[in-house]
Amino acid sequence: MPTEHRLARRVQFYETDAAGIVHFSWYPRYMEEAEHAMWRAAGLSIHLPDSEIGWPRVAISFEYFRPLRFEDEFEVHLRIADMTRKAIRYSCDLTRAGETVASGTMTIVCVQHRPNERPRAMEIPASVAMSFEAAPDGSPK
Amino acid sequence: MPTEHRLARRVQFYETDAAGIVHFSWYPRYMEEAEHAMWRAAGLSIHLPDSEIGWPRVAISFEYFRPLRFEDEFEVHLRIADMTRKAIRYSCDLTRAGETVASGTMTIVCVQHRPNERPRAMEIPASVAMSFEAAPDGSPK
Amino acid sequence: MPTEHRLARRVQFYETDAAGIVHFSWYPRYMEEAEHAMWRAAGLSIHLPDSEIGWPRVAISFEYFRPLRFEDEFEVHLRIADMTRKAIRYSCDLTRAGETVASGTMTIVCVQHRPNERPRAMEIPASVAMSFEAAPDGSPK
Amino acid sequence: MPTEHRLARRVQFYETDAAGIVHFSWYPRYMEEAEHAMWRAAGLSIHLPDSEIGWPRVAISFEYFRPLRFEDEFEVHLRIADMTRKAIRYSCDLTRAGETVASGTMTIVCVQHRPNERPRAMEIPASVAMSFEAAPDGSPK
Repeated sequence: MPTEHRLARRVQFYETDAAGIVHFSWYPRYMEEAEHAMWRAAGLSIHLPDSEIGWPRVAISFEYFRPLRFEDEFEVHLRIADMTRKAIRYSCDLTRAGETVASGTMTIVCVQHRPNERPRAMEIPASVAMSFEAAPDGSPK
Repeated sequence: MPTEHRLARRVQFYETDAAGIVHFSWYPRYMEEAEHAMWRAAGLSIHLPDSEIGWPRVAISFEYFRPLRFEDEFEVHLRIADMTRKAIRYSCDLTRAGETVASGTMTIVCVQHRPNERPRAMEIPASVAMSFEAAPDGSPK
Repeated sequence: MPTEHRLARRVQFYETDAAGIVHFSWYPRYMEEAEHAMWRAAGLSIHLPDSEIGWPRVAISFEYFRPLRFEDEFEVHLRIADMTRKAIRYSCDLTRAGETVASGTMTIVCVQHRPNERPRAMEIPASVAMSFEAAPDGSPK
Repeated sequence: MPTEHRLARRVQFYETDAAGIVHFSWYPRYMEEAEHAMWRAAGLSIHLPDSEIGWPRVAISFEYFRPLRFEDEFEVHLRIADMTRKAIRYSCDLTRAGETVASGTMTIVCVQHRPNERPRAMEIPASVAMSFEAAPDGSPK
């Protein structure tokens, strides 16, 4: 079973724009909130204060089907779609009352930060790789 | 020649995150800033106070190649990659000192808002369609 | 007893900045989140889709005592410090593990929006005034 | 003459909210943008990558007089209201077409970050103290 996480969330007022709906730039943030909650649920943190390891995002995509409005309650359903030696690809669906509002993907890579060096790609640490399982075929669902 | 626009921008402190770089959710906002500047350069506004017409975003994608940091100066080069009867697709590159930092796409559709009705797709008004020209083959570049 | 509300919250990554702490502009948002939760707890919404009534903010202040960091859990303790015929003043404390992180105040006024007119101050509707009680002496605590 | 800086700015769409105006949490960010531009104009950066010195905000206040809307052009007029051995207090006015939209204050302190130590207040470095001049009486104007 691929690792998945469901995050319940409510739209905040500062997330809306003058069109009366959530600004589209918030959806990648919602996805990231679900990602970090998934890591916490696995006993991990994606950003440890003194760690050399970082997880920059290298690609995102989103499709928007329906608007979200102030105080709407919705759910972010995040899944690990694919995991290679150095990258994790997530997919997610946002739903409100059973209807799909948006869907997205995000790919992150593992990098090592050394003082006075450029970050370089590194293998995903075993503690992380063993905590997550990808969908068998790498498909979004 | 496809319509294009170049926006010069500097990274603000509140756009950075605890990894010391611009949070990835800002790039779609940078792209949207360039879009609205492109519309203004054509004598248009994408959001008029009492207009029935709206331009929701239906899809975005971004690839991130290099980080941006506080006070970095960069450029958003936006182009109209494709324009159909009811939708516009943009592509953009973000560059800093000649290096590509990220590239993205965004698709918007034209909708009509009527009181007590759901928004519905409508044809792009002639004033807008005549102001913009798409790349001949719909390619991102 | 003055009306109060306690909101439990966790710091999201996009709320941090390159100094490694929550950017100070987020604290007024945290306070507003608690405000809207307080209204919902009273069976009210501060922003109804087709209402003529609005609640613009006319003043805020914040003092910052300690930083918040990624994934920190904290609490926003919001109180109604004062309520006049046309305005509500809130005060709040943010605490983490029993320590005060920041404290703030915010004053909102009730306005009526009419088409083609400037918003004008109006008396707080009875449904709202009866739902909230201010501290007897208007003090922040 | 107290050091001052004028920043010209245009409202971005993502800064507006469902009330159709700029969300109040953006004004402290506008003020900070002007602050960093003032530092750059003095040949300084408030956040250097490998510096031990930081400038946390310890207090802000804002009063809001008029709304700002999408694409409004406005100016942030920032001044150094007061400077002590370890703190700087700014005041600012936001104006649009000569009308005051909002005014604010912000106090920052100079701190030293050492590995494995808590940040502690330090004297403002001479390079900074000599670059700025406060209003003679510490008044906001």
